[in-house]
Amino acid sequence: MLGECDVERRRTVDQADVNMFAGLTLDFHPAHVDHTYAEARYGGRLVHGMLTFSLVTGLNVEYNMRAISYGYEKVRFPAPVRSGDTLVARAEVVDLKPHRKPEIGLVTKRYTGLNQNGVVVFSCLHTLAVDRRNVA
Amino acid sequence: MLGECDVERRRTVDQADVNMFAGLTLDFHPAHVDHTYAEARYGGRLVHGMLTFSLVTGLNVEYNMRAISYGYEKVRFPAPVRSGDTLVARAEVVDLKPHRKPEIGLVTKRYTGLNQNGVVVFSCLHTLAVDRRNVA
Amino acid sequence: MLGECDVERRRTVDQADVNMFAGLTLDFHPAHVDHTYAEARYGGRLVHGMLTFSLVTGLNVEYNMRAISYGYEKVRFPAPVRSGDTLVARAEVVDLKPHRKPEIGLVTKRYTGLNQNGVVVFSCLHTLAVDRRNVA
Amino acid sequence: MLGECDVERRRTVDQADVNMFAGLTLDFHPAHVDHTYAEARYGGRLVHGMLTFSLVTGLNVEYNMRAISYGYEKVRFPAPVRSGDTLVARAEVVDLKPHRKPEIGLVTKRYTGLNQNGVVVFSCLHTLAVDRRNVA
Amino acid sequence: MLGECDVERRRTVDQADVNMFAGLTLDFHPAHVDHTYAEARYGGRLVHGMLTFSLVTGLNVEYNMRAISYGYEKVRFPAPVRSGDTLVARAEVVDLKPHRKPEIGLVTKRYTGLNQNGVVVFSCLHTLAVDRRNVA
Amino acid sequence: MLGECDVERRRTVDQADVNMFAGLTLDFHPAHVDHTYAEARYGGRLVHGMLTFSLVTGLNVEYNMRAISYGYEKVRFPAPVRSGDTLVARAEVVDLKPHRKPEIGLVTKRYTGLNQNGVVVFSCLHTLAVDRRNVA
Repeated sequence: MLGECDVERRRTVDQADVNMFAGLTLDFHPAHVDHTYAEARYGGRLVHGMLTFSLVTGLNVEYNMRAISYGYEKVRFPAPVRSGDTLVARAEVVDLKPHRKPEIGLVTKRYTGLNQNGVVVFSCLHTLAVDRRNVA
Repeated sequence: MLGECDVERRRTVDQADVNMFAGLTLDFHPAHVDHTYAEARYGGRLVHGMLTFSLVTGLNVEYNMRAISYGYEKVRFPAPVRSGDTLVARAEVVDLKPHRKPEIGLVTKRYTGLNQNGVVVFSCLHTLAVDRRNVA
Repeated sequence: MLGECDVERRRTVDQADVNMFAGLTLDFHPAHVDHTYAEARYGGRLVHGMLTFSLVTGLNVEYNMRAISYGYEKVRFPAPVRSGDTLVARAEVVDLKPHRKPEIGLVTKRYTGLNQNGVVVFSCLHTLAVDRRNVA
Repeated sequence: MLGECDVERRRTVDQADVNMFAGLTLDFHPAHVDHTYAEARYGGRLVHGMLTFSLVTGLNVEYNMRAISYGYEKVRFPAPVRSGDTLVARAEVVDLKPHRKPEIGLVTKRYTGLNQNGVVVFSCLHTLAVDRRNVA
Repeated sequence: MLGECDVERRRTVDQADVNMFAGLTLDFHPAHVDHTYAEARYGGRLVHGMLTFSLVTGLNVEYNMRAISYGYEKVRFPAPVRSGDTLVARAEVVDLKPHRKPEIGLVTKRYTGLNQNGVVVFSCLHTLAVDRRNVA
Repeated sequence: MLGECDVERRRTVDQADVNMFAGLTLDFHPAHVDHTYAEARYGGRLVHGMLTFSLVTGLNVEYNMRAISYGYEKVRFPAPVRSGDTLVARAEVVDLKPHRKPEIGLVTKRYTGLNQNGVVVFSCLHTLAVDRRNVA
């Protein structure tokens, strides 16, 4: 339903998670893995934007076997996330429209990520293609 | 420079990486972590779209201390990635434009991810804000 | 409700998970980490019984802020689990009784773990103490 | 020998270990992974009971190729463990009895887990079936 | 005692371990993480020489609180290790000599690493400084 | 070129990395994993010498497909590294000499590891065999 909001889901992102993510993705920018550099410049090591993004989408994942991800738009990172911050994920349906195939519906959700102080640190639009037919 | 292409960077994504990513992001969809389900439906367990995305951006990361990520558009996953596939990342500058602050330039790159057979599995546009002033 | 069954939850346990668990717990028995030994003796490396147990309880975890674990009884491992097997978790309420504090109820559940072929590989009884008062 | 005590074995459990364990088992209860929630309610994030249990059994593991785990009873968690605590494991033989197969002996050990302040945080009884015949 | 040999200790090194090691050390050479490249060139992905070295020293670690590592010499990697191989570690005392401080003895051990087929894949000399005084 | 110095590369080593390394290598010496013991004795938990060594070589890795590692000499650990320290890696060419096969050159580099305060915590000599022929 348009405007429907799911409950909040939360997880703290620790430096251990940032290091693991760097190892998975090869992004070892000093903002993420060099304490001395990051402390002086940002007041602490930063969580990779893509980890914030991945965690917000993961916390919002639907175990709906009839939906597949179509794509993302307007991916923005309005405020930094530091290791030790706790991320809260929200999802809201903002658009529903038909696909050229009548059995498919396109659902667009706005995902928002906030930190423990309520500051918005992430937002994007996620469009999913959902098969409307009954599936056994 | 517009049209400039960086060299290719590659990494195989193993099921161990998929499991680790699921643990970091809480996305335990059976397509990623249930071998029986995924084998029957997709011919193998799928790499999370966000892990593909994160790895393509990680392989393309620039250790440029004057650039910050502005955002992503047109994020698409045209073909599935299975655990065991090897991802290749490419980046190409597609747009350069001024920001309202004269010292900032906006650089837009197209990131492309391919598998070991040359099939495009990922694409997006990444805009970075770059400080053009000399920095010590 | 007595006899109530939750839906099935599943996850494949890969050798990467077994290695990680060995590193967390210091249990490097050759049945788990020596391929040559385990292949000859068991037809493959075995998943730690405690990882099977932890995964069955994790898949069954309830995000009920008023319940705390009281303890486990009759923990049994009737058949081996090999790395690569997929675990299915089931929970069934088998007993409800009052605690000496009237606001507390004791709920006992039987947890069962099965592999992808429907063989029971784990069972135990888990008793939880639940606060029956309304909590804001 | 009845009453025999092994030497102490110890390991600090860090939040990184708790996060890794959550990822392996899918137990992301906020008591373990949400710093804000856990700090207010428990004075810090809690180690999963099953990680404490797994670590106590891992620290006590015997590399005895003739012993197999029969099962656990009376598993209790008398005090909470917070991330950063150091666990000490102890094992004591409390019962020896014959199996109906004469070549098998049943050994029951009491496992105890303590924190760095000597507080008992875990206990259980572990019964192992040991093959008494000489094995090459 | 000179010539004394400890028992064998073994562990299989899986690709998951290689990936984790790459993430910890930033050595993402394609010989280790690019399946297509490594398969064509080496018949499989190679274990980092430093992971082989670290595992051989780890399997040989002595929990002797009076010994500290002085250094390594003649570190050699005579044959490649592929992910999936099982490493066996051996240690042999090859030299004992006094330090200029009379309370210290220098013990030199030869560490050898073999694969599951008995091929020597690693060797080095490790010198430890051991405090000979009684310590409470 | 003899005397040539590469730019500095840095990474903070967190306790999470030390725990992971212990799990990969089985070196669970209390200096690395027992906070109480290590705090009293060393003012904090120590990074494994082999992790320092592996990180220095990893930070210095060359993606030169024509070079292979010949071996290491004079591996020394002049000062302790504690978890939380930031390692800086340097490499300097100190020797070039021909191999008995004319197409091979032997390059010896001195690797140095420093902490965030400029204290040398690691040094070694690394000899690489480089194929001087043109390779497609």
